[in-house]
Amino acid sequence: MEPVNIGIIGLGTVGAGTVNLLERNSHEITRRAGREIKVKGAAVRDSTRPRACETGGLELGTDPFVLTDDPEIEVIVELMGGDTLARDIVIRALKNGKHVVTANKALVALHGNELFEMAREKGLVVAFEAAVAGGVSIIKVLREGLAGNCIEQVVGIVNGTTNFILSGMSRNGLSFDSMLEEAKRLGYAEADPSFDIDGVDAAHKLTILSSIAFGIPLDYKNVYVEGIRSITSEDIGYAEDFGFRIKHLGIAKRVDSRIELRVHPCLLPAENVLANVDGVMNAVLVVGDATGPTIHYGAGAGAEPTASSVVADIVDVVRALTTDPENRVPHLAFQPQSLSSMRGGPMEEVETAYYLRLLAFDQPGVLADVARILGQQGISIESIRQRGTSTGDAPVPIVMITHNTQESRIENSIPEIEALPSIAQKVVKIRLENMKDHPE
Amino acid sequence: MEPVNIGIIGLGTVGAGTVNLLERNSHEITRRAGREIKVKGAAVRDSTRPRACETGGLELGTDPFVLTDDPEIEVIVELMGGDTLARDIVIRALKNGKHVVTANKALVALHGNELFEMAREKGLVVAFEAAVAGGVSIIKVLREGLAGNCIEQVVGIVNGTTNFILSGMSRNGLSFDSMLEEAKRLGYAEADPSFDIDGVDAAHKLTILSSIAFGIPLDYKNVYVEGIRSITSEDIGYAEDFGFRIKHLGIAKRVDSRIELRVHPCLLPAENVLANVDGVMNAVLVVGDATGPTIHYGAGAGAEPTASSVVADIVDVVRALTTDPENRVPHLAFQPQSLSSMRGGPMEEVETAYYLRLLAFDQPGVLADVARILGQQGISIESIRQRGTSTGDAPVPIVMITHNTQESRIENSIPEIEALPSIAQKVVKIRLENMKDHPE
Repeated sequence: MEPVNIGIIGLGTVGAGTVNLLERNSHEITRRAGREIKVKGAAVRDSTRPRACETGGLELGTDPFVLTDDPEIEVIVELMGGDTLARDIVIRALKNGKHVVTANKALVALHGNELFEMAREKGLVVAFEAAVAGGVSIIKVLREGLAGNCIEQVVGIVNGTTNFILSGMSRNGLSFDSMLEEAKRLGYAEADPSFDIDGVDAAHKLTILSSIAFGIPLDYKNVYVEGIRSITSEDIGYAEDFGFRIKHLGIAKRVDSRIELRVHPCLLPAENVLANVDGVMNAVLVVGDATGPTIHYGAGAGAEPTASSVVADIVDVVRALTTDPENRVPHLAFQPQSLSSMRGGPMEEVETAYYLRLLAFDQPGVLADVARILGQQGISIESIRQRGTSTGDAPVPIVMITHNTQESRIENSIPEIEALPSIAQKVVKIRLENMKDHPE
Repeated sequence: MEPVNIGIIGLGTVGAGTVNLLERNSHEITRRAGREIKVKGAAVRDSTRPRACETGGLELGTDPFVLTDDPEIEVIVELMGGDTLARDIVIRALKNGKHVVTANKALVALHGNELFEMAREKGLVVAFEAAVAGGVSIIKVLREGLAGNCIEQVVGIVNGTTNFILSGMSRNGLSFDSMLEEAKRLGYAEADPSFDIDGVDAAHKLTILSSIAFGIPLDYKNVYVEGIRSITSEDIGYAEDFGFRIKHLGIAKRVDSRIELRVHPCLLPAENVLANVDGVMNAVLVVGDATGPTIHYGAGAGAEPTASSVVADIVDVVRALTTDPENRVPHLAFQPQSLSSMRGGPMEEVETAYYLRLLAFDQPGVLADVARILGQQGISIESIRQRGTSTGDAPVPIVMITHNTQESRIENSIPEIEALPSIAQKVVKIRLENMKDHPE
């Protein structure tokens, strides 16, 4: 089948990330979408500026309307931001019968009602997963996954800049101003940071989330907005004394027959999951009447997390273009003819760290014996503790954590350890997993 | 438009929950799906047993094939469990051209390859979001939301029974046996709990997740499975001394060109998000090469959380039956003609608790004055702390947390407080949100 041609408007952070991701994962993406996705062209403001992606294979120009008017392009991916030229581009793309994928929250919050109406009339999609909370699939979850619920509340940390600043003030006792400088230095805040720290960006996102959660038209003007400029490290410290953390939240809440929409700094009980979402991470808590609370957590910004949602939207469009509607999404995610035969190896070859508990008579040399056996298998010990002290002849537990090693090496060591005369019972072995739950 | 008729096989916990949810939220669900969803009939083993849902409006019988053969029924919802009769029912439904929604992880893990092949040939859907992690939309997230990623790891707490037992052993120092009894008493464990505590249920779920994440056929036999019977509270305590918690995990990991699949108890660093998922809650961590780690958390079992995913799947099917494929999912989740006009009220009517910080000269009666002003507005104080002590004439901060009250009452109080002669500067006000992040 012919590739689907797409045109990308804007090759900044997210645009370049999208080109890189489509290139690097083209095999996995084609296996899922059922068709190759090809970046035919891209439009940028300044074609001489260096880009964070390869641009050799694509038509690079400065006129976005060359792409919206190209009959070979089926999907326009708008990643330039702003809500004036971007709006014109999306309207032109829809008029020309092209699907649109966008990461532009301002555009969706301010002009979504109009754009979606145009798209529906033409039988086209405007997809915008990347507009809220980067790589967290919160639009899809709210729109489809929670479709059986009457949604009661949506509460989100949806702006990485403000969360980075507040987390740093809380952790290091630094002032708002010095954390803002730090955020600028690391590229987490713009030169003019007011969109983020005054809450406008979060309010755009809350507008989108609330519309999808409650079935109300997009209505940005209806959101109460307060930023974080007034938060002092003094207040953060006092709040902590009371058992609270201060977060900048977007809150949409059903109260009787009304929907409260507000963005403002807020105290949260320290043990609440959202209170523990730090740095530039995002998280959205949704309370449905059937599910109760569910939480959706991940990187909220950055080139590749946002590009991940852009590509997911492109795959959604391509799946709908390519297959019968019932089988739009393959049952097992990948196209049936593209399943691979990768298998796991035997358990003996798996590598993890291990917790080992021995019961040993407190004889001289027992630790040396155990360490020698483990060492012969190439297993190194990270920490070891002897519990309690032997009273008379009673054996005492010895507990240790190893570094990563192969299951087979542990399996070879255990019978040798158990055969030592100083060891009083079978060795207890539990595996230890060190997987990351936040980016390095 | 005519309602879509569905037939439900099994009215146990999840079946009754599904009937209740479709009834209670019929307005919201129809607004989203674009068509009413009607339970035409249900089949149960024993039609005399009392049910946890209203059965007056539906045809209740004991023969499931009456439903699979009913030409008016378009979707069969299989909620009986097991993998023999359930398989026959699903096959008969597909042969008769009906879409299938199931919550049956054993059926999908053991017979999914065959059933999906049949469905594809007939242009039908077999949907199974409810088979893994209850109300957490993890199937949709992996299959669609993360479609741009090369998935590196999927690590999940996907069995509520084992997590409830291990959490209780850890929190209360109780033995495995007494926590198992407690789980049975609360309905979290079956009379014969071996499917859960020996890891079979988690292995079924990991089979499904790994297939979708990595694009490999369902292959249950390939999963290494170990349960939690051997875990002692002694080991849990020792692990905690080292800074770890013990969780029962399903792990699918890409290692070179292989996929490790294993279910076993495991130590996790105590600060890891998964280490803090307690009780019957489920959570799945996915590491994609673009997104980095994302976490998907919610109730993993229970009538309504599971029914939530059953209904989401039914809505998915109905949307595909009803609209053109491009507009299968409405842009704003609800059908455009069904958006409601609910609005938020003015900010003054919003109710939250408040953190207030005053700077006061340490004069007798200042606290009494502030308390009187707040009391006149009907605001009650939850806690109050005076920071430091006044040295000479310098004012000292007074920090307090109020109970829930209306913004207007706080706004009325603040100028009065600021007008007190003992108050040295403007009052700092930050709102406080007490939303739940776990079920009561």
